[in-house]
Amino acid sequence: MAQDYRVKCCPDGLVTDRRRRVQVLDCTIRDGGICNDWHFDHDLVGRVFSALVTAGIDYMEIGYRTSEGIFDRDKVGPWRFCDEEDLARSVEPGKIKLSTMLDVGRIETSDIPPKADTVIDMVRIATYAKDLDEALRLLDHSLNQGYETCMNVMAVSTVDPDEVDRFLIRLAQSGVHNVAIVDSFGALYPHHIRFLIRKYTNYLGEGIKVGVHLHNNQQQAFANSIVAVEEGVDFVDATIHGMGRGAGNCPIELLLFYLDNPRFDVVPLLEMVEEFAYMRDGLRWGYHLPYTITGYFNIHPREGIRRMATDERYQVREMYEKLAGRLPARIRGTG
Amino acid sequence: MAQDYRVKCCPDGLVTDRRRRVQVLDCTIRDGGICNDWHFDHDLVGRVFSALVTAGIDYMEIGYRTSEGIFDRDKVGPWRFCDEEDLARSVEPGKIKLSTMLDVGRIETSDIPPKADTVIDMVRIATYAKDLDEALRLLDHSLNQGYETCMNVMAVSTVDPDEVDRFLIRLAQSGVHNVAIVDSFGALYPHHIRFLIRKYTNYLGEGIKVGVHLHNNQQQAFANSIVAVEEGVDFVDATIHGMGRGAGNCPIELLLFYLDNPRFDVVPLLEMVEEFAYMRDGLRWGYHLPYTITGYFNIHPREGIRRMATDERYQVREMYEKLAGRLPARIRGTG
Repeated sequence: MAQDYRVKCCPDGLVTDRRRRVQVLDCTIRDGGICNDWHFDHDLVGRVFSALVTAGIDYMEIGYRTSEGIFDRDKVGPWRFCDEEDLARSVEPGKIKLSTMLDVGRIETSDIPPKADTVIDMVRIATYAKDLDEALRLLDHSLNQGYETCMNVMAVSTVDPDEVDRFLIRLAQSGVHNVAIVDSFGALYPHHIRFLIRKYTNYLGEGIKVGVHLHNNQQQAFANSIVAVEEGVDFVDATIHGMGRGAGNCPIELLLFYLDNPRFDVVPLLEMVEEFAYMRDGLRWGYHLPYTITGYFNIHPREGIRRMATDERYQVREMYEKLAGRLPARIRGTG
Repeated sequence: MAQDYRVKCCPDGLVTDRRRRVQVLDCTIRDGGICNDWHFDHDLVGRVFSALVTAGIDYMEIGYRTSEGIFDRDKVGPWRFCDEEDLARSVEPGKIKLSTMLDVGRIETSDIPPKADTVIDMVRIATYAKDLDEALRLLDHSLNQGYETCMNVMAVSTVDPDEVDRFLIRLAQSGVHNVAIVDSFGALYPHHIRFLIRKYTNYLGEGIKVGVHLHNNQQQAFANSIVAVEEGVDFVDATIHGMGRGAGNCPIELLLFYLDNPRFDVVPLLEMVEEFAYMRDGLRWGYHLPYTITGYFNIHPREGIRRMATDERYQVREMYEKLAGRLPARIRGTG
């Protein structure tokens, strides 16, 4: 019998249930803003908002909330601060869940207004495992102010397993609503992602949703998102055309193609992709070896980002050899 | 206890056995040649050869063997023909297994010399399922001439399951040494790859090696290669910096990072990547929406390739909507 699947040679429904239930969080303006210092004009942010609403996306993370004096307002755009006046010019409440990120160390609790005084629905707290005390202080305050909350413990690929256990035990008791597995450096392969999802869901239990925030240094952001969906996560982060720090994130257009869920409509996002593809030609996120190498060595992408801005961007042999020299011999394959 | 894995948070050895045993076939000049009509000069091909030898790669597929008159020698480079004089200028026998591809319909058996008269070790026959009779005729002749052989049944994503069964049954009895699962259109997700690998290995049995040749239209070439390695395939195709038709192939540098096998050395390939990265800036293989869309709709990339050469390359909404209109309603989510 002839089939009318797009792919004819084999069944297409193996993980359909999980593909249909997962929620999507777009963080184009927030994480993509790291590429252009959040210099998106209000019109563009308004069009991204409308496209995400029409596409049926669940969350839009529109930027960071930041205390005054941490960044120079003459140098960075409005989405590093997310003042209510700026939000009001570009988005409306009630059409999509709106999120802002809070960076531990860059925001005072006094700068987090009550939920009733803002269009923001959710705050996501970005912390390193070592700063969890401060992150939990921000979390308590945010819960008291009435927000849905999410905790992003960054760069988990650099944290020892027992320290992961410890922060998960504390998060399980914290009252947080959502926790993201965060591959800040794009270092993780599918077998790592599977292991972490099972660990996070086992420790956090039924009441806390688990998602993924993945970087594309090794062309694994979308691929690891598929692994996450197959493992049954509750939400996946993505950005338009994959815009994000360094190699960027999971492209939301690829994710929607894969999810094959009629409640999403990819068309309004494809229209935005046209604009972001030209931006990518200038800002150079995506698959480039300097990012791949920082991902492979599980370090912050800053050296890759520095290199990509120079004419030596593709001269990567020396970069690789310097970093390989730091590894223990048995990992280099010579022990 | 502190670990010295590159990734600290979880074990890294889950699929190590399979990662260590898989062989790698580089087809940069052959498939990458589709991007530049095989206009690689002899010096570059010689340097690619040396880099692959030093890196420890198992096979180098250097081009196609083609009967006279099929292509205009004034328009395409030497690697569409792989004359012995050209091969002798760039490669040496005995240092890496050398392969040429034979396209069904573009080569006569009389143009396939005895193994003793060429530096080529293996021939790979590229065929559509419908042309299997002719492919088996080329195979018989190639076996008689003394070659190691491989069969690439292209665009398997467009073939009905019972037709896949039928060609696998014939291949199982054909004497062929290797068979590649070929995702010509970059249409397949991991659950498809897993299904096909199990089917191919079950039908072909112990004596025939199974590998993958994957395209990157949906950023899945490397990711699906990981799936293939996890499933235990015998060989994986890759190219330098992913150079290949349309979105390209699995980047060999990513594959070697992942395989983590001390018998491979990525350094000589990283040196080549510098050169290929500049080529990519001009030839535009890699992640671009026109390729993604042909991959998603499981069609030949030619419309994407045509578009990428124009100024409308990023205006993809109309391209998507035209193709979506062809799908049955229940696949579009409206049935």
